[in-house]
Formats: sequence, C-alpha cells, structure tokens
Amino acid sequence: MNDKILDLNHLGVKRFFNLDSNTYRDGSLPGETKELLGLVASAVLRCNDCIDYHLEQCAKSGFTKDEIVDALNVALVVGGSIVIPHMRHAVETLEFLEGEGGLNVERV
Amino acid sequence: MNDKILDLNHLGVKRFFNLDSNTYRDGSLPGETKELLGLVASAVLRCNDCIDYHLEQCAKSGFTKDEIVDALNVALVVGGSIVIPHMRHAVETLEFLEGEGGLNVERV
Amino acid sequence: MNDKILDLNHLGVKRFFNLDSNTYRDGSLPGETKELLGLVASAVLRCNDCIDYHLEQCAKSGFTKDEIVDALNVALVVGGSIVIPHMRHAVETLEFLEGEGGLNVERV
Amino acid sequence: MNDKILDLNHLGVKRFFNLDSNTYRDGSLPGETKELLGLVASAVLRCNDCIDYHLEQCAKSGFTKDEIVDALNVALVVGGSIVIPHMRHAVETLEFLEGEGGLNVERV
Amino acid sequence: MNDKILDLNHLGVKRFFNLDSNTYRDGSLPGETKELLGLVASAVLRCNDCIDYHLEQCAKSGFTKDEIVDALNVALVVGGSIVIPHMRHAVETLEFLEGEGGLNVERV
Amino acid sequence: MNDKILDLNHLGVKRFFNLDSNTYRDGSLPGETKELLGLVASAVLRCNDCIDYHLEQCAKSGFTKDEIVDALNVALVVGGSIVIPHMRHAVETLEFLEGEGGLNVERV
Repeated sequence: MNDKILDLNHLGVKRFFNLDSNTYRDGSLPGETKELLGLVASAVLRCNDCIDYHLEQCAKSGFTKDEIVDALNVALVVGGSIVIPHMRHAVETLEFLEGEGGLNVERV
Repeated sequence: MNDKILDLNHLGVKRFFNLDSNTYRDGSLPGETKELLGLVASAVLRCNDCIDYHLEQCAKSGFTKDEIVDALNVALVVGGSIVIPHMRHAVETLEFLEGEGGLNVERV
Repeated sequence: MNDKILDLNHLGVKRFFNLDSNTYRDGSLPGETKELLGLVASAVLRCNDCIDYHLEQCAKSGFTKDEIVDALNVALVVGGSIVIPHMRHAVETLEFLEGEGGLNVERV
Repeated sequence: MNDKILDLNHLGVKRFFNLDSNTYRDGSLPGETKELLGLVASAVLRCNDCIDYHLEQCAKSGFTKDEIVDALNVALVVGGSIVIPHMRHAVETLEFLEGEGGLNVERV
Repeated sequence: MNDKILDLNHLGVKRFFNLDSNTYRDGSLPGETKELLGLVASAVLRCNDCIDYHLEQCAKSGFTKDEIVDALNVALVVGGSIVIPHMRHAVETLEFLEGEGGLNVERV
Repeated sequence: MNDKILDLNHLGVKRFFNLDSNTYRDGSLPGETKELLGLVASAVLRCNDCIDYHLEQCAKSGFTKDEIVDALNVALVVGGSIVIPHMRHAVETLEFLEGEGGLNVERV
C-alpha cells in the first residue's frame, strides 16, 4: 500500500517517507532501541497498524517477548486503560510472530 | 505537589502512583531503557512536565545528550511538527541539566 | 482476550488490570456514576471497545437509554464532530442491548 | 474573554457557545451529573482551563471534595500517568475553592 | 446511520448535527475551502470515516487529486508518521472516487 | 529557539525542519491555503504556539480577520468545546496582529 502513496508522486510525501525510514537506522542510539521507542509511541497514540509494524521490527531486532511486553507496560501506564484494546491487539500479533518462529523467547 | 495528591487519601490514586513508579524499575528491560520509553511517550503525548521528569531520569541513567536527542527525534517523526514546541522545551531543559553538570556529553 | 494479557504474567500489567476494575467499585461516588464517567471518557478518547464495555455496564446499572444518550451528548459537545462516528457505533450497541432486553427504556 | 469571542460576531461560533451551555442544563440526566461528566472528559483530554471551569460548577452543584477526587481517579486510570500534571492542577484549584468556602467537605 | 442518531430525539444532539452541516456552507470563506479544512482536521485527528466524508465533498467541490494530496501532505507533516495509515486509507478512497468518475485530474 | 534545535546538529531533526518549511510553499495548492490548513490542524490538535505561528502567516498572506475566524470555527466544530481555550488564545493573537496593523479587515 505504501507504493500507492509513493506513486502519488508528491515530493513532500516522498521525502517524509524517506525521513521516516531513516529515523530507525543506527545513530547515537542503536536502531533496535529506536524501534522499541517507535513501538511505545505507537501504542500511546493508539495506532494498531503502527504497533504491528514496530512489533515485527522489534522481534527481528532480537527483543524477546518479555522485553516487548515490558515496553508495552510502559505504554499502558503512561496512556491508561484506553491503551488496553491496543494491548490486546499487540498480544495477538506477538502470538502470530511466535507461531511463525519470528519471536525469541530468550535472548540469544 | 505529588504529596498533596497523596494527601487526598484516595486508595485508587495512591495505588496508581505506586504502580507508576514501579513501572520504571529494572524488569525484563533495564529501568534506564524504560525511562527513555517514558520520555518518547511523553513527547508524542505532548506533556512538558512529563518530558522534564523523564529527561532528568534519562540524564541520571547516563544517557548522553546526543542519545536523548536521537530519542526525541523518534518522537518528532512519529508525532509530527506539533511536537516541535515540546522539542524546544526539552532543549531548554537539557541545557539546564547540562549547566548543572547533570548531563553526560559522552558515554562514561 | 484479557485472559491472554494476564497470561503474559507481567506483574505491572496484572496490577494495572486489577486497579482498573477496582476503579468502578462503589467509593465516594457510586459505581454506576463512575461507569457513566468511564463511558464519556471513552467516547471523547474515541475508543469503540471501551465505549461498548461501559455501555453494557451502564445498562446493567439501570441507566435508561435516554440517560445514556444524554451522557453521550456531553461527549459530543466536548469532543466535537470527530466523536460522531463513535456516536453511531454507540447507537448500534444500544440497539443490540435493547434487542436483548438488557436496556431500560424507563427508570424502574 | 468569552465575550471577545462572541464579539467576533460569527454565527456558527455563537451557536456553538449557546449549544455548549445548554448541554449542562437538566435533561434526562440532572445537570450536576453532566458537570461531573464534563470534568472527566476535560481531564482525559488534558485541558486545565476546562478542568477549572467544571471543578467550579461541580463544587457549586454540591459535590464534595471526596466525590470530585473519586471522579478524577476515573480520569487518571482511563487516561494514564499523562493525566498526573492535570491532577496536580485540579488539586490546587480544589484547595483554592476550599479556601474560599466554595467546596463541601461533606454532603449537606 | 445518522438517521438513527437523529431518531434518538435528543435536542442537543440534533442541534449539534445541524450546526455541523452549516459549518461547511459558504461564509467568509467559501464552503469548498472549509471542506478542505475539515479534511485536514479529520486526518490529523485520525478519523477514517470523517476523512472519507470530506474527501467526497472535496472531490464534489472540484478539487483535483493533486490538490487533495497536497492538503493531506500538510496533515502528514503536522501529525507525523502516525497519520500514514490514514493516508493509505485516503488513497484507497481517492482511487474509488476516481474509478467512479467523481474526481477531477485537472482543474476544469 | 529553533536555532538551538538546529544547533543540536541531528541530521534527522534538521531534515524534518527543512521538510516542515517546504510544506507551506506553493504546490498544487497555493501556500496561503496551506497556511490556513496548518492553522486548523494546529487548533484541533490544541497547540497554542503552532496556532500563533500559522495566524501570523495567514495574516501575512492577506486573509482577513473574518476569514480566519471562519476557519477557526471549523476547528471548533470538528474538535469540540475543548478547543475553546485555544480559540480564546487565537482571538488575543488576532487582536495583537490587528493592533500592529498586520491583519486585514477587508480583502485588498
């Protein structure tokens, strides 16, 4: 779907997308820490699509299920009970990633 | 001021405050990583008091100025230009912490 | 689905869920008033799952359809036209509860 | 200050202000319950001016300090720790109203 | 579905709906400019139903696809990457309107 | 203050600021229309600093006071009574701009 957005051929939109992907590259902080930051930002702003994207990236970066849940708990306390439906969504996605073998149970 | 809130003597409020402080203790993730998550959550939700609190905790945890700015950049991209006034606020607080000698310029 | 969240076995998350259910128990305010407060908070924060949960609780507490609609109107005026799609969702849920015989038309 | 807004002489704006004040009149729910709903909506949406307005109205309606705090606790749990600075603000306003003799400690 | 809301027969709700439709009539600004404002407000507040409604109105008013995308780009920069899923939704709706012949490619 | 942010020397932050200013240049839509879109986005997201910035730009672009108020009315209806304190803030800024001779009363 993002291809369709880029096909709109709007320079500002294209540059935003470019900026967005560069944000999570290694910088002063390692890219993986920034994926975790992106996950928590998405959770408190209550965006399921964004949560799914960052969950996948966090899992790929090697974060374990328990570490990801500990990050989501920060989002729950900062954002309140209104975050609970998104926590449910995240748990389903974590189960899916686990089923696919794409989520570490322990640090390797 | 939090003392005045605790003096209200409301059990639910007290338990929330207790839960809140426990959130940033070491768990599956180290406490310092969770302070950084709290900072980004506060920045995208645009709460200056919360930003200040977590900036102080991040600085105490040993994060350098550049690392903190790299975290705030995630908040800026996720939350958009509406986050800019809070970025300005954060930079002032970082300068204050730096002036006080409470912020590392390099990892020690 | 909440069971799956509790199965994550994260102490902070469990305590948050516990705190959340205690919030709506009788206190200085009766529990039913607090369900109505939870409904309006959910509506202005635009969370359909949360709206459904509190609608059910409000109906169980004996609030009539007209009283619930009067509460939702507060959410509409405070939160603006962006609340309208959630008002539509709430009306569907109210119809469902009415069809099931779980919603009072008049105070009993 | 609202006078200045009305002096703008924009029909839509005037009608919105009119609609807004009518919202908290007695209807299917008593006006005082709706003031409490307005307070919680304002707290989760984190608007200090709105919180102050509804606190005053709630106090005038006869709600006690403990009842108001119990309502604010709903906002805290639904909205999360991001609501804490607004809780601090509300406590200051409650103290001010108490000092003025405009807040009941017990139901009369 | 709005009919069902009006059937609730709540005077405040009815007046809000009336006020809402009058907002986009010609005034000091032409109605079509206000539809574009409504679109951007809906996009930064991340409400797909509202986005769809205003996209249709903007298309009817004669705005071209490129103009609408340029407006959505403002929402993207102001609201951040959290707006991207709603941008995807908007692009699908624009394609649908285009397929139906209801969207100008060039100003006529 | 933005200079201090640019002095942080973070490439991502710099590129975001650059992207942000380019957003309001003439494109498929004229720059002035996009300033009005930025104003309404800022108002519904309730950011006074952002409102002030866009009010100034809108006034410079030649929009009259009545046109700006008509745009703010869209924000009020979309965003609800929670926008009122920001409307008050905007009216003060408009008065200031008027006093300075920087705001048109009629289209010139």
